[in-house]
Order: sequence, then C-alpha cells, then structure tokens
Amino acid sequence: MQANSPLEAIAAIIREKKHFLVLSHIRPDGDAIGCSLAMGLCLKELGKSVEVWNEDGLPQRFEFLENASLVTKPPTSPKAFEVVLVLDTAVRNRAGTQCLANISPGAFWINIDHHISNDRQGDIVHIDTDAPAAGQILFELFSQTGLPITKEMANALYVAISTDTGSFQYPHTTARSYEIAAALVRFGVNIGAINQALYENNPRRRLELLRSLLNVLQFSSAERVASFALSTTTASALGTIPDDTEGLIDTIRSIQGIIVAAFFEELDGGMVRLSLRSKDPRIDVCQICREFGGGGHTLASGARVSGTLDAVQKAVLAAIDRHVRVHLQ
Amino acid sequence: MQANSPLEAIAAIIREKKHFLVLSHIRPDGDAIGCSLAMGLCLKELGKSVEVWNEDGLPQRFEFLENASLVTKPPTSPKAFEVVLVLDTAVRNRAGTQCLANISPGAFWINIDHHISNDRQGDIVHIDTDAPAAGQILFELFSQTGLPITKEMANALYVAISTDTGSFQYPHTTARSYEIAAALVRFGVNIGAINQALYENNPRRRLELLRSLLNVLQFSSAERVASFALSTTTASALGTIPDDTEGLIDTIRSIQGIIVAAFFEELDGGMVRLSLRSKDPRIDVCQICREFGGGGHTLASGARVSGTLDAVQKAVLAAIDRHVRVHLQ
Repeated sequence: MQANSPLEAIAAIIREKKHFLVLSHIRPDGDAIGCSLAMGLCLKELGKSVEVWNEDGLPQRFEFLENASLVTKPPTSPKAFEVVLVLDTAVRNRAGTQCLANISPGAFWINIDHHISNDRQGDIVHIDTDAPAAGQILFELFSQTGLPITKEMANALYVAISTDTGSFQYPHTTARSYEIAAALVRFGVNIGAINQALYENNPRRRLELLRSLLNVLQFSSAERVASFALSTTTASALGTIPDDTEGLIDTIRSIQGIIVAAFFEELDGGMVRLSLRSKDPRIDVCQICREFGGGGHTLASGARVSGTLDAVQKAVLAAIDRHVRVHLQ
Repeated sequence: MQANSPLEAIAAIIREKKHFLVLSHIRPDGDAIGCSLAMGLCLKELGKSVEVWNEDGLPQRFEFLENASLVTKPPTSPKAFEVVLVLDTAVRNRAGTQCLANISPGAFWINIDHHISNDRQGDIVHIDTDAPAAGQILFELFSQTGLPITKEMANALYVAISTDTGSFQYPHTTARSYEIAAALVRFGVNIGAINQALYENNPRRRLELLRSLLNVLQFSSAERVASFALSTTTASALGTIPDDTEGLIDTIRSIQGIIVAAFFEELDGGMVRLSLRSKDPRIDVCQICREFGGGGHTLASGARVSGTLDAVQKAVLAAIDRHVRVHLQ
C-alpha cells in the first residue's frame, strides 16, 4: 500500500507508542463494541498497555465475546494516555461526558469512522464513508499494514460488520463486506456459534414485549404508516431494559406496502422517545424528526419529544400524514 | 480445473445438447427457485430451448425476480427433452408426480444437489454436501467452466444462497459462501433491493398471524420448550396462505434458554402438521417426529399427525418432555 496513507500513519503510531485508550460512542451497538474490542485486543497482542472505555459499559448481549470484559465504564478520576483512538463516533461528545472528562490533556487523538457527519476532530482523522461499518475500516487497517489479527479480533470484527449491515442485507453493504466476512471466517470465526449468540438468544421478555407491541399496532395514512407505542406501565410490567426495544421497529417496517414505521417509547419525566424509519427516500423522516427537535438520516431518524404518549403519537402521526400526502401523490 | 470433472462433464452436455428441462422440488424454497431460474436463464443465454417446471409453481414471494415467469407448473400431457436437470432435490419423487409423469422417456438426467440423503439417481450425479445451498454448486459450475453468468442469474443465485443460509448465518455457511456473494454483487446484484424484496416485504396478515401465535405461546418442560398452535378457524379468519407460516417457528426458537420449539398447524381432515426445531444436538427432534410417523434432521424435523389440535399438542409435548428429562439432566 501507499506509504504515508492514513492507515500507514495510524499503524506507525500504534507500533511506536505504548499507552493507549480506546473509545467509542454512548449507547454502543455491535459496531461500537466490536471495533473497541478488536482494537483493544490488537494493542494487547502487540504488548501495549491499553484501556477500553465505554460511557455506558458493555451491553449484556455482547458479553458472549471473548475478553469482552476488556470494555469497562470510565473511571471517576483522570488518567493519562499517549494515544486515544476514537472509533465509530461521529461527534466527539458522543464519546460520553465521563469518558472525556477523565482523559488527562496531552494525548494524541486518532479518529476512525464511517459517518458522513463526522466532525473530523483529531490529530489523525480517517473517515471512509463507503464502509458500511467502522469494523470494515479496522479490518483494512490491520490487514493492509500487517498488524496482527487473532481469532478473537476476527470474532469482534465479524460482530461489528454483521450487526451494522443487518446480517449483510442493508443497501450500503458492499462486495468488500462479504470478502472481509470470508477472510474473518478463515481467521477462525465460527459462523454458527457467533450468529446464534447474536441473533438467536433473545430474552423471553423481548418476545413478550413484541407481543404487547403487536397488540397495539396501528395503521394510518391509508395503510402506508404502521406504528406502535410502549408505555412506562407496560415496560415496567414486563421488566424491559433499554436493549430490549432495539430493532423491534424493523418488524413493522418489513410489512408490505408500509412506507413509514414509527415507534413511540414513553420515558420518565413526561418525555417520549420517537423512532422513525422510511422505506422510500421521498419520505425524509429526518425532516419530520427535525420538526420535533430531533434528527438523523433520511431513512432512519429519532427525537425526544415532551408530552404525553397519546399527544405525541397524535402530533407525529399527523406530521407524517402531511408528508405522505405531499410527497406520495 | 481438472478435465473430466463432474462440473466439466455437465458443462459439456449443456454446450452440446439443445432441448432442456429444469426441475426442482415440491414446495419450493429460495434455493429451489433460485437454482431453477439461474439454470433456465443460463440455457436461454446459450440459445437453448428450455422449460422450467415446478410441481407447485412459483411462490408469490419470488415473483419479484426478473424472468421469474420462466418457472411454470408442469403441463398435463407428456413432452420430450434431451436433457433433464434436477436441482436441489434429494429424492427423485420430490420433483413431483405431475412433473415426472409428463417427461417422455429417453432423456439424459443430470442430478445436482447438496443433500447428504440424495438418492444419486441420474446419468451424471454431482452432490456436494459441503455446499450450504445448491445455488453455491451452480455458481461453481458456471464460473469454473466458463458458462455465462448474467446479472439476472446472479440475482437468482444470490436468492438461493441467502435464503438457504438464513442470510449467511446458519452453521453450514462457509467462507466460500461469502466469497460467492461478493462475486455475485460484482456481477450486478443490488444488495439493498434484493434483500428488501426477500425479507422486508411481509404481507400484513403474516404479522397478524405472528401476533395471534404469540398470544397463544406456551412454555413447558421447565421453560426449555416453547410452542404455539394455529387452528383452521384462526387461519381462515386471517386469510393465511401456506407461505405465511414459513419461518415463524424461528421466532420462538430464538428465545434464550429454549432448547426445543414446536409449531402445530391444524389441517383439514383431522390432521395436524407438526414442526420441531432443536438448538441442542442432544435433543434429536427427528427421533421425536419418527414416533409420530415423520422425520427429517436432528435439529429440524416434521410430521403429519392425525388427531385434534389439542390431543396432538398434548401427546407431542409429553414426548418432548420425556426426551428432555432423559437427555438434558
């Protein structure tokens, strides 16, 4: 590969320095955890001193990964590092308040990401917006610069890429994503075991939650919009944790003829978390969420709206209906 | 590649002969339809005369594939062909009574499959039990022998491999499956569009069916068995078609701690269709289904049992409980 490319520059720092911190974003998904763990394990393999922090800690559903306990919550007092690697994190403050507050000044910052909205903060910034997962960029980094790739790192990178591509299904998945998956399998990923741990290990209460949501499923805008709502009463009766609601909106997004899916989750303090998904670029749910103080992408956005569950539902469904009437005639 | 290999021998016949029939199995899945269509399109591309029959015709959910109408039901009177290609069909009679009855004698039969139980009937038999999908074998045939691969064929092969590997998740998926997917994308598969058509296009009644099944979800054998049942009354109220129930058992198989999932579907004439899935090889659901006159694989089996829905449920759950008590202590 080309000398002085960003990947070579990052690899040179990784080889040269000794004390590292790895960070990713709050409310971590599979890409955030997979990248954090793969980078942490690579640094350990090289004999470096490394810590891996996540503001919200390790979600239960990724505990099955080998050495997952390397990912910890941040400490409560500052520590010094030579290098901070921030992975899959579009905006610096998404690394989390407590994480950022406890890094002593003077570190060299490396920012590796795939979000187009990345704020490009850092001493080395490598953003590849063609990569469907930050894990795909890390694989290129490790493989193209001759850094080690162990079986445990391969498992972590597989989790990153599989979860961020919806198991190799989303439109941004590339031929290269499949090629990297093949390479990771040759590095030792056990496809059956890892996919069973990722996708076939739902807590029973998650299915009970799906059942109660399907029982309040609503169709509107001439059957082009499907929505459901979760009250705090139902959530506490079922004992749900935040992880449980992840991805449930896809169940209604997948209905034939549905263009917009909406999920309303009542929070404490008179707030409602809104999630919107669109299947048609003519309906820009980011624009709709902006009307309610949120944002995101054209086909996937969210907002936190103050109001009762009922009132927020009515207002949002009315806003969606206006967009559907204007853009889908 | 080696001269006189089975793939070369098959390619030689394909190049030499003019009149072809392509067959697959009854109740066709994505692999059966994908292979039938890819082979039919390859032969058309070569300027051959070709028919593609399926005993049950083309399922609605595969109608989105280009040239899918090439797959037809068999005719009602015999026709003559030089070559019959039987794909993804373990046992000859699974090609269907009407298909087999309407092929004039004298054809050269080619049997391409990946089932270990294949009956090896045919003038050329090529069985690769390491392939997770017959579509993977067809890709090797086309690519290794220089037969054409068009974008439409790539789409059909992608459907074959994606559906038979559960979107690249099942244990038998290989590094080669991902490599072939990468190659198919380079041949022009639109990942987003094809996966949306395959997996995000559920009829609304399928979700309503899932809802009613979740509402009758039962746990037994100390929460290690989950089961649900569909009565003909509920099925006709919802207007379900046979396709709708496909894969619903996976929803309950994926529950944490569940070892066996059971689905009971009431049929007309006092019969019940039983489907069983196991997540642990110590519980051989094939053996349980044999007790009720059925069979299949260790982890996925089925049977048709005479009796009322209630009586069959009780008898089968009791049989499962005996196996769980003996093998999971």
